[in-house]
Amino acid sequence: MNDLSSPALPRQTRQWKVILSYDGTDFHGWQVQPDAMTVQGELQQAIERVTGECVLPQGSGRTDAGVHALGQVASFPLAALIPPSNFLRALNRTLPESIRILSAEPVPDHFHARHSACGKSYEYRIFRGEICPPFLSRYVYALNWPLDFPAMQAAATTVVGEHDFTSFAATDPDLTHRQQEEPISNVRTILSSQWVQEGDCFVYRVHGNGFLHHMVRNLVGTFLAVGRGQYTPQDIAAILEAKSRPAAGPTAPARGLFLVSVDYEVEENILSPLENV
Amino acid sequence: MNDLSSPALPRQTRQWKVILSYDGTDFHGWQVQPDAMTVQGELQQAIERVTGECVLPQGSGRTDAGVHALGQVASFPLAALIPPSNFLRALNRTLPESIRILSAEPVPDHFHARHSACGKSYEYRIFRGEICPPFLSRYVYALNWPLDFPAMQAAATTVVGEHDFTSFAATDPDLTHRQQEEPISNVRTILSSQWVQEGDCFVYRVHGNGFLHHMVRNLVGTFLAVGRGQYTPQDIAAILEAKSRPAAGPTAPARGLFLVSVDYEVEENILSPLENV
Repeated sequence: MNDLSSPALPRQTRQWKVILSYDGTDFHGWQVQPDAMTVQGELQQAIERVTGECVLPQGSGRTDAGVHALGQVASFPLAALIPPSNFLRALNRTLPESIRILSAEPVPDHFHARHSACGKSYEYRIFRGEICPPFLSRYVYALNWPLDFPAMQAAATTVVGEHDFTSFAATDPDLTHRQQEEPISNVRTILSSQWVQEGDCFVYRVHGNGFLHHMVRNLVGTFLAVGRGQYTPQDIAAILEAKSRPAAGPTAPARGLFLVSVDYEVEENILSPLENV
Repeated sequence: MNDLSSPALPRQTRQWKVILSYDGTDFHGWQVQPDAMTVQGELQQAIERVTGECVLPQGSGRTDAGVHALGQVASFPLAALIPPSNFLRALNRTLPESIRILSAEPVPDHFHARHSACGKSYEYRIFRGEICPPFLSRYVYALNWPLDFPAMQAAATTVVGEHDFTSFAATDPDLTHRQQEEPISNVRTILSSQWVQEGDCFVYRVHGNGFLHHMVRNLVGTFLAVGRGQYTPQDIAAILEAKSRPAAGPTAPARGLFLVSVDYEVEENILSPLENV
């Protein structure tokens, strides 16, 4: 009898990394919840339908309800020996069309989508036309009022670098208890932060080593307040300094936000050709 | 007392024309139905909420469940004297975001969105990549199998001109009884019919003086059968000649189809400056 097929023996597992894209509109966010459709829950079910194995895929981070992903990353261990291209096709046949697996590959055992991540890129889209096409409305925040775009651009550059982003962090109920015992740092490094105009949209792109809960949406909401003249670009430094959520602007709606990609050290993705089925 | 505000007197109405765009995914088609969300039903409710008047807007034609519109046209009479730009904004504030009014204007009394129409343009999009982005899947038919594109292009040109399109017409239950008494012609004139490649998509564009029920989707399904080698481009003439629905290919899915625009004689849109509030 083959060890790998024996249910009585612990089966050797291999760690997998998948990159996935989803339209977040119809999901209650990433994280699995009872009685609610979530991306993690759908992926878990698809993996189980394809392989018979019940594993909880770990995301690079949670995305909120309505937030989209172009390149979310998840990892999980599997005992099944399935060729990556077959696994990718089988998952896409099983998942709803609003979730697509873009790549699936075995990775070294120590790879973990969240713990191994060393950076992330997000994009936020604001539609500036008077009438938002119905084919765009799930993917943009439609905002037709006057905005001082150069001021928003100037404000965006002021958050580049290492800062304590407490003023831009939502209170995360899941973290509160742990934080009380052992405070978690709200210091993050932003590598680039800029607004660009693309067609009828203002697009905010940000790349950093990590992001707090709601941080991108709170940055965008604050930059929009700058665009409306409520703050000046120079006020951002004081808002960061305040380390207080009420010092910053409101949270921008989820629908305009896309998780674009997650960074890993290059070595995390490399398996020797022999390991890679 | 002002005549216009007196409920006891018949109020003078004015005919309106609206151009609207919608994402058909979540609607049970255009035509109002009890207990189902339809585009006509949503528009009727929005008009009533804005003006207090209950009118059934007449579309240029019905679109099926899942079919989208870039420029559907509807007409209806209203007694309310409301400036067109205010009416447009009020309708868009009231309608779901998946329906947008692009223009609203008073037109001559004899204008009727369906009876006055003298042509229509449609577009059908086929996504050819291996993995369809979740942000596109509501708006394309994803079809990854090999297709002979030049053969599809050749087939498309053979339907240009005046033909009896019975082979491409669904049996319309609403028309059957009337047809039995007084047969309705299935002759239509196609002015242009072509496939083009745009990025990852094959796009079919057709312009004609009128279209039968399911006609564009049946043409697309038949051209796809040509692309798969089931028919040759030269077979289309015989399929038309057969005047029999089973002679042609299957009906392509609704999601890839867009009603692009509806043609009217230019004079239909002109009101004297005095009439136009």
